Amino acid sequence: MEPKTNIWIEKDDKVVLSLWRVRLLEAIAETGSISAAASKMGVSYRRAWEKIQECEARLAVKLVDTQTGGSGGGGSSLTPEAVAYVDRFRKFTAGLDEFVSERFEKYFSDI
Amino acid sequence: MEPKTNIWIEKDDKVVLSLWRVRLLEAIAETGSISAAASKMGVSYRRAWEKIQECEARLAVKLVDTQTGGSGGGGSSLTPEAVAYVDRFRKFTAGLDEFVSERFEKYFSDI
Repeated sequence: MEPKTNIWIEKDDKVVLSLWRVRLLEAIAETGSISAAASKMGVSYRRAWEKIQECEARLAVKLVDTQTGGSGGGGSSLTPEAVAYVDRFRKFTAGLDEFVSERFEKYFSDI
Repeated sequence: MEPKTNIWIEKDDKVVLSLWRVRLLEAIAETGSISAAASKMGVSYRRAWEKIQECEARLAVKLVDTQTGGSGGGGSSLTPEAVAYVDRFRKFTAGLDEFVSERFEKYFSDI
């Protein structure tokens, strides 16, 4: 048996940030591309783009900058606000897995 | 904005215990009836019964005893094993909300 958790943040009963959404943003930062990030997350470009737009609307802040064409062929990157949100979220959730693992060990290790 | 979490336990990639399932078991203990517990949880009797059977199969232990008819009109109660699982799960998850709230306060209170 193993413990599992999920953690997210809501605003007006709607998800604004979650582990999944933060991983998507991190994948965009890493790959410089929404479609590469979507593929990495196992979803369609459309789905990834919808999630980003949803977060942007709910947080009322732009999260992803996209340049089309140009000598570099375009690409996407996180805005400073998105970088700050990802950083906050990672700090917020740091230690959760250890907290849960320790408690699980304490109460379920004998089963 | 507010933090949200979910916590559960899996065995062979399948849920064996979760906050929802533990609440269902607690509702059965409280009401002495699967149908009253199902109604309290906002699901059909069938759905509640399926979840219980699923947990019993995955944990390989009987969780709910049901007496039909008799002078008391029948009713359901938790087995000692179910009581022990509920107790373990509640101890396991105790403090999680406080842990998450404190961290949220630390990293998101200024937004």
